Amino acid sequence: MDRRDFLTTASAAIAAGAAAAPSAALATDHDHPMPPDWAEMARRNDQIVMVVYPGMTALDLVGPQYMFANVLGAKVHLVGKAHEPVACDTGFSILPTMTFTEAPAEPAVLFVPGGTTGTLSFIEDDESLGFVADRGARATYVTSVCTGSLVLAAAGLLTDYRATSHWVVRDLLRHGGAIPVDQRVVVDRNRVTGAGVSAGLDMGLHMVALMRGPDYAKACQLLAEYDPQPPFAAGTPAGAGPQATKLMDDMFAAFKERTVAVLRDRSRR
Amino acid sequence: MDRRDFLTTASAAIAAGAAAAPSAALATDHDHPMPPDWAEMARRNDQIVMVVYPGMTALDLVGPQYMFANVLGAKVHLVGKAHEPVACDTGFSILPTMTFTEAPAEPAVLFVPGGTTGTLSFIEDDESLGFVADRGARATYVTSVCTGSLVLAAAGLLTDYRATSHWVVRDLLRHGGAIPVDQRVVVDRNRVTGAGVSAGLDMGLHMVALMRGPDYAKACQLLAEYDPQPPFAAGTPAGAGPQATKLMDDMFAAFKERTVAVLRDRSRR
Repeated sequence: MDRRDFLTTASAAIAAGAAAAPSAALATDHDHPMPPDWAEMARRNDQIVMVVYPGMTALDLVGPQYMFANVLGAKVHLVGKAHEPVACDTGFSILPTMTFTEAPAEPAVLFVPGGTTGTLSFIEDDESLGFVADRGARATYVTSVCTGSLVLAAAGLLTDYRATSHWVVRDLLRHGGAIPVDQRVVVDRNRVTGAGVSAGLDMGLHMVALMRGPDYAKACQLLAEYDPQPPFAAGTPAGAGPQATKLMDDMFAAFKERTVAVLRDRSRR
Repeated sequence: MDRRDFLTTASAAIAAGAAAAPSAALATDHDHPMPPDWAEMARRNDQIVMVVYPGMTALDLVGPQYMFANVLGAKVHLVGKAHEPVACDTGFSILPTMTFTEAPAEPAVLFVPGGTTGTLSFIEDDESLGFVADRGARATYVTSVCTGSLVLAAAGLLTDYRATSHWVVRDLLRHGGAIPVDQRVVVDRNRVTGAGVSAGLDMGLHMVALMRGPDYAKACQLLAEYDPQPPFAAGTPAGAGPQATKLMDDMFAAFKERTVAVLRDRSRR
């Protein structure tokens, strides 16, 4: 039984509630009766487009990808500019599953991961940003993690929307027309943005709940054993303290300067 | 400035404490004076071997990979059986950076991610398990996330060690000679094991603290903005409740049975 078989089964059983609990049918792996609403869920055909590009942060992508991959009745695509390995900023490469031209025209979800200089280069590439603008205009949900929200903003998809980003650049979203909010996950109409890197797990679970309901999302959470216990409380500027925060802020000075320039340049076009 | 430059700089500054805070030197990107102990850290040459195999869970790998990639003076390798894309169980592939025969002989860290049927197939492959047993015997730290601990146990690396795994199979570690512990991250001598899937972020941060000290680990945590806020409390059997837990337990019955058989078979050799 692979992960998908399992979750399909588990979800069906959980949805059915106590009545469906330990039954003979559940004791086998591949022949589970499903309650009608979950059987219907499995027949959906949602297309999830996760954009991939050189220099992206792998964890920004893979946290939500785990959650999306477990959505019953949905298919996840890693969509890149070409059928070539995409080098992530932590030193390894992943393979796109399709290209911009092959991607579904009206996805249920458009997702963009973050990064640093690779993210700004992606924004400066007309073909890449054009793809995001096009699919973002048609997608049911438009989502991001970390500095991926800079891409959405540059594509004109966050104008007058509340949104978040990595704390170090969150306020710069204003230069792309968005309203920055200091929150782990921000949902404004159909725009769902997550904070820095690790926030992808929280954003992903929020999306599962929006797409398939809280009971289904809870099954995903149990499968992921997502009961986080970081050894320190240094995950935010407030937790890490003003000194560490100011140091990081100062050290991203050049990146922030370039981010402002890139966002302003895009908004003038 | 890329992620590595940034963290190198940030760490140096944090280590130097208040005295080093906003200074002219820190205002530039590529010319930061480092305190002697951190400069020494940067000169280390730790080799981190992260095993990759078909059917592994990408998030098991990528959570700790983010943390390891930010360790100053360390190089991360994704080590597979061949130079071929490795298909993860959530539907995409990553590229190994080297093969078993090319991997460092005495790594600072050996890491094994989990999965379900792919993990058991990996255990049943003599060459693969032999690689884990060999490097595990020489590594400074032997680590895993999720069902990766089943691999370590099958390789004889957890005999009489306290360890954890995904909750659904944790107790089965006994069949591989380990002592199962219900804990997010278990450190027993140089064996460091994490619970299911998402526990890789916690395990990874623990490892950074063990390798480079808590101040450095806190800098990594702030960079990752690792301040988790899951939307539900369903990440553990206790949080999800007995019904959902029993359902999942029942539905992994076939996988658990095969796991016991595979671990017993290995322990007889």
